[in-house]
Amino acid sequence: MTDQNERHRLRMERKKAIIDAKIAAADKNIGVIIVNTGNGKGKSSSAFGMAVRALGHGVQVGVVQFIKGAMATGEELFLRRFPEQVRFHAMGEGYTWVTQDRERDIARAQLAWEQAKLFLSNPAVGLVVLDELNIALKYRYLDVHQVIADLLDRPAMQHVVVTGRAAPPELIEVADTVTEMNVVKHAFAAGIAAQAGTEW
Amino acid sequence: MTDQNERHRLRMERKKAIIDAKIAAADKNIGVIIVNTGNGKGKSSSAFGMAVRALGHGVQVGVVQFIKGAMATGEELFLRRFPEQVRFHAMGEGYTWVTQDRERDIARAQLAWEQAKLFLSNPAVGLVVLDELNIALKYRYLDVHQVIADLLDRPAMQHVVVTGRAAPPELIEVADTVTEMNVVKHAFAAGIAAQAGTEW
Repeated sequence: MTDQNERHRLRMERKKAIIDAKIAAADKNIGVIIVNTGNGKGKSSSAFGMAVRALGHGVQVGVVQFIKGAMATGEELFLRRFPEQVRFHAMGEGYTWVTQDRERDIARAQLAWEQAKLFLSNPAVGLVVLDELNIALKYRYLDVHQVIADLLDRPAMQHVVVTGRAAPPELIEVADTVTEMNVVKHAFAAGIAAQAGTEW
Repeated sequence: MTDQNERHRLRMERKKAIIDAKIAAADKNIGVIIVNTGNGKGKSSSAFGMAVRALGHGVQVGVVQFIKGAMATGEELFLRRFPEQVRFHAMGEGYTWVTQDRERDIARAQLAWEQAKLFLSNPAVGLVVLDELNIALKYRYLDVHQVIADLLDRPAMQHVVVTGRAAPPELIEVADTVTEMNVVKHAFAAGIAAQAGTEW
């Protein structure tokens, strides 16, 4: 057992030296664009987890939801309790197959983008969550080049998180961190409903 | 434009019928085991986003962090503000290459599991977050079969979220929803530090 523990210590000592060097090399502090995409669970919830981290550090948070809005979600119910730190705008009316009205969806998306631009031009907002923006881009409700221009024009220290399936390649190109959430298995396929507290 | 809008409406009408049927088939409400694994960003943050959703719905949340604990994170600073709804236990002392002490890591992991078991036997706790548990399993600090037995023995309506790289196959087997967070790109590789409000 002592040998195993000593081998463990030596291995971890070497690993620490490697990781410390990487951490020393990654010394820039700057606002980043984070994109959560893919078909798996966790894209929006991860964005709201980052909101929690930001709130813990006293950072102001702005949220715009592009699709959600027809039904109050847990994240909205909770984050609205902190109006001095979080501004929450659920500006969608449901998924495209629920609204079934393209012109109205476009008008809603453009209105939501106007709100997003207010956050993106305000250096007091440290984290901007643009929930399901990728869906609005996928359906071309918003012009991806204009969206990217506005994102790149934001204050230098401001972080942005964009969520939704099918992130466009142009957005992935300019993003700093991109994660693809992939389904390994999903309870929904086994007949389990989307439930309060996990999915919404 | 009218033609395009009408085609959109018909396509979305058909899509809605298909999705409504799937939603009708997924009618079970039951506690689920959710696993967030992979090398990408978003595993822990997604778990804390689910905590936010649960809090919005008035659900009690229990958190055990298996690796984190040496440094106060944004999630801990924020969630500790709600002691009546969230019980937060950051019981780790850092990653294995920081502690470099296998016996001590094992003792800490076992202590953390004792706390987890208190949550897993309490039906008043609706969501249990077991952050970085996969790391403790990967290093065999805990016995995966015992952990699974305790997970399966929990109250029927309780949800559990397990995070960390390299989830063991035995855990994936019993989980209801498993997501692999895959790196498409990461700011760290481009020299940007892990920052307050996004990574911790």
